Amino acid sequence: METLPLNKAFTLLEPGPVVLVTTNDGEKNNIMTITWTMVMGFSAEFALTTGPWNYSYTALTETKECVLSIPTVDMLDTAVGIGMCSGEDTDKFEKFGLTAVEGSHVQAPLIEECLANIECRVVDTVDRHGIIVLEGVAAYYDSKRKEKRTLHAVGDGNFVVDGEILDRKEMMLEKLPPGV
Amino acid sequence: METLPLNKAFTLLEPGPVVLVTTNDGEKNNIMTITWTMVMGFSAEFALTTGPWNYSYTALTETKECVLSIPTVDMLDTAVGIGMCSGEDTDKFEKFGLTAVEGSHVQAPLIEECLANIECRVVDTVDRHGIIVLEGVAAYYDSKRKEKRTLHAVGDGNFVVDGEILDRKEMMLEKLPPGV
Repeated sequence: METLPLNKAFTLLEPGPVVLVTTNDGEKNNIMTITWTMVMGFSAEFALTTGPWNYSYTALTETKECVLSIPTVDMLDTAVGIGMCSGEDTDKFEKFGLTAVEGSHVQAPLIEECLANIECRVVDTVDRHGIIVLEGVAAYYDSKRKEKRTLHAVGDGNFVVDGEILDRKEMMLEKLPPGV
Repeated sequence: METLPLNKAFTLLEPGPVVLVTTNDGEKNNIMTITWTMVMGFSAEFALTTGPWNYSYTALTETKECVLSIPTVDMLDTAVGIGMCSGEDTDKFEKFGLTAVEGSHVQAPLIEECLANIECRVVDTVDRHGIIVLEGVAAYYDSKRKEKRTLHAVGDGNFVVDGEILDRKEMMLEKLPPGV
């Protein structure tokens, strides 16, 4: 995994992929699968919606740290499986054969097998809606990985895989943020 | 367009498609293209992030109504074009040959050419983050439309088209919301 400039981090989440969110509660690592995420700016600002029913919620809101990891299509059963069990009684890194890699800024681990990872700090919470506002502090991308197609949850048990890519850079030139 | 049960409306946004947001300020219709959206629950709760730099913002926050319309891949240049001009000096329905259809609950129009439309009310705003919280009040889906592939903005001028669909319903059975 090589470092990705932070001003490009939003391009990892903007297409709306399934995301694995790692936390560390001071004793153990955990992972949750989430698709309720949103980009909020060009400076690595993100939101996600979750709540206390999720075991990761306590670690996320108490440590105020997490890593957003982007799995690819070959990791679909891992992503679904992570969502179907709880960190309360399961070591998800062990169960799904994932490799926890130490980050540089937060205690939550990166996932080596993922296409991309973003170390994040919780900068705000909007409790009445379960919105957690995150600021990315470092981003990583595995450009050597062959499989780069990500997954989009429909929410009914179906997942849409990335297809063709269409380039409209020229048409959008005057509105694209600099350096992206 | 046929009516889609409201408890399925989140499946239109959960995959993270490019969205056209229509408003009506009491005098005229307008459209903006947005990709900063998030599903917030199984009961047609959504968020989007925007701000006063966007001409639609005033109509959206003053009327507290909008329609979320989902364009398909054949509408890419329309979706990009809508994002590159302003409702301040442009009738976007006329410019892009789109048909405004009257909704049942809000003054903002549906877009006939889109795959799906969700009539929404603004139920809250989180001003410090530019987050607008929406509640869907009616949803429509054009199941007769041949082209159903939606678009996912990368944010750098590229757009990912929906590819293959993978079914993990059986694996997710115990966590899927009822009736979806």
